[in-house]
Amino acid sequence: MNIPVVLIVTTLPDTLTADKLARKALDARLAACVTENGLVRSRYRWQGKLEAAEEIQLLFKTSVARSAELQCFIESNHPYETPEILAWQADASPGYGQWVIAETSRPLHA
Amino acid sequence: MNIPVVLIVTTLPDTLTADKLARKALDARLAACVTENGLVRSRYRWQGKLEAAEEIQLLFKTSVARSAELQCFIESNHPYETPEILAWQADASPGYGQWVIAETSRPLHA
Amino acid sequence: MNIPVVLIVTTLPDTLTADKLARKALDARLAACVTENGLVRSRYRWQGKLEAAEEIQLLFKTSVARSAELQCFIESNHPYETPEILAWQADASPGYGQWVIAETSRPLHA
Repeated sequence: MNIPVVLIVTTLPDTLTADKLARKALDARLAACVTENGLVRSRYRWQGKLEAAEEIQLLFKTSVARSAELQCFIESNHPYETPEILAWQADASPGYGQWVIAETSRPLHA
Repeated sequence: MNIPVVLIVTTLPDTLTADKLARKALDARLAACVTENGLVRSRYRWQGKLEAAEEIQLLFKTSVARSAELQCFIESNHPYETPEILAWQADASPGYGQWVIAETSRPLHA
Repeated sequence: MNIPVVLIVTTLPDTLTADKLARKALDARLAACVTENGLVRSRYRWQGKLEAAEEIQLLFKTSVARSAELQCFIESNHPYETPEILAWQADASPGYGQWVIAETSRPLHA
């Protein structure tokens, strides 16, 4: 009954670049919905030192069929050289899952 | 050693409806814990146009046994016609996993 | 092409304890990156009553090889008696996945 969809998380340096990436992915029909989770603080080691950065986290919801293409799209359109792109499968409620599939289907004559 | 549990995400139009849904699910013992992640901004296409909506995101933690029932409950008690309901399995630490199972067990004489 | 990594979520009572746990895990090379998702509100039943607590949510990103050790580390270094520790596998983009593995590898002469 449930429909598998794919959730993809990435982080951007600011709201402007986050908005732009979300809109471009929606325009390309590579995601049905993108949720901006707001400001997060990431901590990591860089060249042996602990660093912290404030970032904007995006959660993309797409179909299984379009997931690989969306991941490549995020990588290509991301301002970071090595962006965080994390994907996992989830079960969507039937109505929502069908909507995700419909929204990420290519138009017949594109 | 770890115990499988189910994480379920949904988004509500405001804090009031989010609080109400969270409390109802806890009262019905369909979830052990509900985390309100605060305000998020969702972007999606609607009738060919890009739309944005501010929403409240909830993360439910429940047992594998009660997961399907909780998803139906969210769908039935949600103000949207086609709510976003996304579920995936996670491994819980033993103490937390046992607590989730205990909290979502039906009382013997209910 | 994608590389499996493990995402681990936990919640702490405040920013101070959250920062401390994040730094300790990074110092121990048990995580490559820790994202502080900011303030969340958790609702749960405790001794038959509905309770609510404001908490800080952390999302750890680590390798499959170090995941079990990180979960034990969080449990041991957490101020709660029964902390929420939830882990699931995700596919990372190749560059990010390789970075996670490199950052969580033990130094040869430690």
